Amino acid sequence: MQLGFVGLGRMGSNMVMRLARAGHEIVVFDRNPGAVAQAAAAGLRGVDSLDALVRALLPPRAVWVMVPAGAATESTIDGLATLLAEDDVVIDGGNTRFHDDVRRARALGARGIHYVDAGTSGGIWGLADGYCLMVGGDASVCSRMEPIFTTLAPERGYLRVGGHGAGHYVKMIHNGIEYGLMQAYAEGFSLMQASEYDLDLGGIASLWMHGSVVRSWLLDLASRALADDPELARLEAHVEDSGEGRWALEEGIARAVPLPALAAALFARFRSRDESPFADRLLAALRHQFGGHAVRTHD
Amino acid sequence: MQLGFVGLGRMGSNMVMRLARAGHEIVVFDRNPGAVAQAAAAGLRGVDSLDALVRALLPPRAVWVMVPAGAATESTIDGLATLLAEDDVVIDGGNTRFHDDVRRARALGARGIHYVDAGTSGGIWGLADGYCLMVGGDASVCSRMEPIFTTLAPERGYLRVGGHGAGHYVKMIHNGIEYGLMQAYAEGFSLMQASEYDLDLGGIASLWMHGSVVRSWLLDLASRALADDPELARLEAHVEDSGEGRWALEEGIARAVPLPALAAALFARFRSRDESPFADRLLAALRHQFGGHAVRTHD
Repeated sequence: MQLGFVGLGRMGSNMVMRLARAGHEIVVFDRNPGAVAQAAAAGLRGVDSLDALVRALLPPRAVWVMVPAGAATESTIDGLATLLAEDDVVIDGGNTRFHDDVRRARALGARGIHYVDAGTSGGIWGLADGYCLMVGGDASVCSRMEPIFTTLAPERGYLRVGGHGAGHYVKMIHNGIEYGLMQAYAEGFSLMQASEYDLDLGGIASLWMHGSVVRSWLLDLASRALADDPELARLEAHVEDSGEGRWALEEGIARAVPLPALAAALFARFRSRDESPFADRLLAALRHQFGGHAVRTHD
Repeated sequence: MQLGFVGLGRMGSNMVMRLARAGHEIVVFDRNPGAVAQAAAAGLRGVDSLDALVRALLPPRAVWVMVPAGAATESTIDGLATLLAEDDVVIDGGNTRFHDDVRRARALGARGIHYVDAGTSGGIWGLADGYCLMVGGDASVCSRMEPIFTTLAPERGYLRVGGHGAGHYVKMIHNGIEYGLMQAYAEGFSLMQASEYDLDLGGIASLWMHGSVVRSWLLDLASRALADDPELARLEAHVEDSGEGRWALEEGIARAVPLPALAAALFARFRSRDESPFADRLLAALRHQFGGHAVRTHD
């Protein structure tokens, strides 16, 4: 089917290739003309504005938005709201916070435009393996978009999980789980690295992929990373986050659901970014105050 | 090859079947005569004592011990130590603490008996899928036992990870990781269960197996459990542990390696077993003391 696609970053540029290869007619736009030119070189139809994108599509139109969550997504959807017409569909495939989906669905709905939130997992491997899609929105609108969803997803990798916001809600929790899983592996490998035994971490990660209880796709990635660089010496110990873990923890607070492993994982990331935490300096100061314990000072 | 096998519990009874099907000559003993009779009915050779087991084997003998870690394993290996001869091999496939392996290897070594510690993962699914084996011991002894290891393991699922104790050390950390992974899933599904959206948890677990970042063998098990009983209403919220998580955390303390997700997961299990934690009563008492906040009392 025909689909407009906004956003040709790491995720979007692979997704349009997967769609085009399956025979869908994809019209692409990105703020970066170089990204559009690259997609055009690969045989897709590129346009140079949101306006041109909408004009290139036949009603009822469908536009997939795959730009960073927050301001970029908001302004793209605001722009589309003024350009699209009744019965057109906007799909937000980014990591939007579910409250924003509910608000946007209402605003677009007032103009007769449908809104679908599609939590999209799979990273840079999705082009080959497919993207797991968690979709929220009206059932009939989701049905209309199924040719797109089932092309992007591997078999059984698409589900409409509920109404507006449900897709991003489930994706938010998916990412929160991902934080905890990553932290669990990170702690275990860290303990092995500190062991008296001289352990082959890459070999053990690969071993565990075969018949062990902890086998997973993330473990497979750990095995690749450790095979490339067994000491991970090329990397700085600095870990970013892109919001979903924080939102999941805030949702746990709102619903009084304890999430200690997620909290530990999120706080470990915050800690990784601070070379000289004030809290640690305060602990050193207090030990010095009450016990005269030695402190280390900057010369 | 010929192998004596002690312990026909949930793990052992499947392991001997996997070995026998591959043509190995397995002689089995268990304290429970019913378990031996059952193995004999399946075509294995059963004996009624450790002594008979050792007499049934040709030197150099090999005996796999698969009984609960701690006193049961200790007394079995003590018994074997008096019955076996120089160049025989004892393999401990249970979840022994690695310090005990080092001690036992030394004691048996003084009599010329070899000791191998084999961390064994795969649970009740190992019969069909194979067991992931993390093995510690002398390289030449491990090589001699490879026909057994490679039969029990799936392809690439066996590795000698180091000297005495290394197999159980790696298995201990494997299980510690398992605690964190399980806790991460438990928290995420718990938050979805508490959500305003009416989410199909079993459907989402199954969805995530197809292309998502959190796909894993444990998630597949969660999907089966939730398909059977979507509210998990048949289960009590009571979670045991069998020691490896505690030992991994103690090893983190010994080596000053922070393991916050493991600690959270282990403490969640402890909490699950206490219907009226003293700590929670103390918190209620303190809120009452300083702020006159209402407390709930027994009648």
